[in-house]
Amino acid sequence: MVMNNVPSAALKLSALGCRARPPAITALMKTALETPGLLSLAAGFTDNATLPVTAVAGALHGLAVGGSNQEFLQYGTNSGRPGLRTALAARLLRQDGCAAAAADTAAVAEMAGRFFITNGSQQALYLAIQTLCEPGDIVLVDRPSYFVFLELLGGLGVEARSLPVDAAGRLDPTALRAKLAAMRADGSRARLKAVYFVSWFSNPSGRTLDAAQVRELAEALRAEDCVIPVIEDAAYRELGYDEAAARLRPGVLGDAAWAGFPRLYTSTLTKPFASGLKVGYGVCDHEAWRSAMLHAKGHHDFGTANFAQAVLERALVDGAFDSQLVILRRAYREKRDALNTALEVGGLRARGWRWRVPEGGLYLWLEGPAGLDTGGASAFCRACLHEGVLYVPGELCHGDDAPKNTVRLSFGVLPPEKLAEAGARFCRAAAAVLA
Amino acid sequence: MVMNNVPSAALKLSALGCRARPPAITALMKTALETPGLLSLAAGFTDNATLPVTAVAGALHGLAVGGSNQEFLQYGTNSGRPGLRTALAARLLRQDGCAAAAADTAAVAEMAGRFFITNGSQQALYLAIQTLCEPGDIVLVDRPSYFVFLELLGGLGVEARSLPVDAAGRLDPTALRAKLAAMRADGSRARLKAVYFVSWFSNPSGRTLDAAQVRELAEALRAEDCVIPVIEDAAYRELGYDEAAARLRPGVLGDAAWAGFPRLYTSTLTKPFASGLKVGYGVCDHEAWRSAMLHAKGHHDFGTANFAQAVLERALVDGAFDSQLVILRRAYREKRDALNTALEVGGLRARGWRWRVPEGGLYLWLEGPAGLDTGGASAFCRACLHEGVLYVPGELCHGDDAPKNTVRLSFGVLPPEKLAEAGARFCRAAAAVLA
Repeated sequence: MVMNNVPSAALKLSALGCRARPPAITALMKTALETPGLLSLAAGFTDNATLPVTAVAGALHGLAVGGSNQEFLQYGTNSGRPGLRTALAARLLRQDGCAAAAADTAAVAEMAGRFFITNGSQQALYLAIQTLCEPGDIVLVDRPSYFVFLELLGGLGVEARSLPVDAAGRLDPTALRAKLAAMRADGSRARLKAVYFVSWFSNPSGRTLDAAQVRELAEALRAEDCVIPVIEDAAYRELGYDEAAARLRPGVLGDAAWAGFPRLYTSTLTKPFASGLKVGYGVCDHEAWRSAMLHAKGHHDFGTANFAQAVLERALVDGAFDSQLVILRRAYREKRDALNTALEVGGLRARGWRWRVPEGGLYLWLEGPAGLDTGGASAFCRACLHEGVLYVPGELCHGDDAPKNTVRLSFGVLPPEKLAEAGARFCRAAAAVLA
Repeated sequence: MVMNNVPSAALKLSALGCRARPPAITALMKTALETPGLLSLAAGFTDNATLPVTAVAGALHGLAVGGSNQEFLQYGTNSGRPGLRTALAARLLRQDGCAAAAADTAAVAEMAGRFFITNGSQQALYLAIQTLCEPGDIVLVDRPSYFVFLELLGGLGVEARSLPVDAAGRLDPTALRAKLAAMRADGSRARLKAVYFVSWFSNPSGRTLDAAQVRELAEALRAEDCVIPVIEDAAYRELGYDEAAARLRPGVLGDAAWAGFPRLYTSTLTKPFASGLKVGYGVCDHEAWRSAMLHAKGHHDFGTANFAQAVLERALVDGAFDSQLVILRRAYREKRDALNTALEVGGLRARGWRWRVPEGGLYLWLEGPAGLDTGGASAFCRACLHEGVLYVPGELCHGDDAPKNTVRLSFGVLPPEKLAEAGARFCRAAAAVLA
């Protein structure tokens, strides 16, 4: 091999290539790996202990012996397996409160035609922004927002601006109208291309938008003549500890308040089943937008792995998916309790920290005392590493105007006893570093 | 659901969204689906009969009972499974003639660090162009070239220009030097960002580049001061009917002629094992380029499905992958013979058609009589549909200056007896429509 002997010629990357940067938490993760005994509350991974090995083996067995051919190991289509899209369409219609449509073959088929299967919901989000935005454009995002989405926007040169929230963290439609009016006045309104939010048990905040907030958001946008594409990220909809949470409100596709908006609803089968399968999906009611996303996907990879889709289709149809959800909901509730109890018992509230206890998902979102800095280079972060615990600095989860005193803790990965220990360590660090 | 009641607002797509078009063969495929009894020699799918159901089930069983945890169903990393990259690195070193390095743990680890796992090799190609090119830039491509890559370029607004070939289809370094000089003269040289070729049993032409052609290509580029990124697509390297074909020459990473060029070598595990797993890879020796591709991949999907990677890692390590290759090579050789014999027996050569018989891969590349038009709207195409056989018009496989009289026939999908029938139908159509 000669590759090491001659230095490569200099190379000029594209603008996109130049914008591509390592994720903001890379340095933190590297530190973590080099710190023996560290307990990580940072990674958004899922629970290893409950991964559905038996269900996946059963699905594969069913595919291998049940079919008349081996098509599940063959290429699929660009938009995804028809059977999987049909199963998902019926499920979404049921969750959106349309039981009659969910039982109507034609209605399900029409809905299935709006689905496209992706490499995790992340790819659906990427395709959405690629087909809507030029560098310099603007997307409105949650406050706080999913930091991988913020990095995706950055990679495509798109600016994130926060949807205003009130002191309680609720969307503030009055402030949004003022913000949109100001954008019109300063000329940036023309660059506003979409609005994005995580609607159930959000990453990172754990909060779920109620029907009133979602409706008021639509009304504020409409009132300011901003009938722009809406992207609802429902990645955690299935992970309410009470399964009824998924039916709390319909998603944007089934919500009259959003009629007329070009709508993309994204979700995933990985967090509620097995993240190693990496299968998500988008559902879009705007034909030109959906077509553009699909054609771009054809260029990315011309279709998500058919094998993983076949396993998931079978798990959905034979009930293994729902059985797994029962296991996951119980496991994550227990883990939430373990971490939350450790923070309560460790006296974090008495030190001025505040948080709500979410009823689903994988995250606790903490607000530290005013003046505290939780950034990756802060004394607080060093104290946590000294105690042997890692978190995601909340400042990474903001599109703009990031507060310095917030923290995301994930209870997805560690077992309950380790969560209790990690929580205790976090409290000791908080005691050691005052604002 | 209210989604049907109110028309969606108009939506302005990005430039990329506007460029995204359905694949050129969409209309042809639609016709095919609507034509009862049609035999398709168009789709580049693989053989269903030989798909490795037992090997995949065995790999899953080994993962499920053999490991101390369920990590194969958990998220992986953005660059891919370390064990898979290590197995692939050793394999590539062996194929490139570096047996000593392949046996040296440090050398293998260094090579493995240059690997990144992707959703088929297609994603590696997409990332390469995304990180190198702006709309309006130019990439040099095979003549003929892989039409999905040409569409990928088009989606990113990049112009494909053909590498000159002589009458025998060999790369023509003298003509290339003249072309590069002309590009310098007309100012387009500054927009030339990469050179791309399929080196083994090419899609669509079936031709394999010998060491002399690859070296002369490098020398011609270097002589014209074009030490630009080179992208070698080795998707069919494993599919020589004689396994020694993979060692005919080293890939660009192991070829001294390419020292100093930023090099990306891409290949796939799907065509030589199971296309439903959709796992490919890139290997890049230029650190800044590789980092940019990896960061962009983090935005696409932050990592290819870990489950499919785990299955493939196990199949590579336990020998199932190589066993499957033995089966595939035999099957594809038999299928090539079935189609080729049908064309010979059908008298196609006597009608002025020419083709070479490839020693690997899935394709026959035919040149019809001068003056014949094989395009999707041609009389010849209608005659084929009338006879009940479908092909890919060769004009779709050209970056520029496409000849009208070429055809790609795939023998990947149909069993031998159907290939014989499809070949006979093709000959009847050729007899019915003269140039």
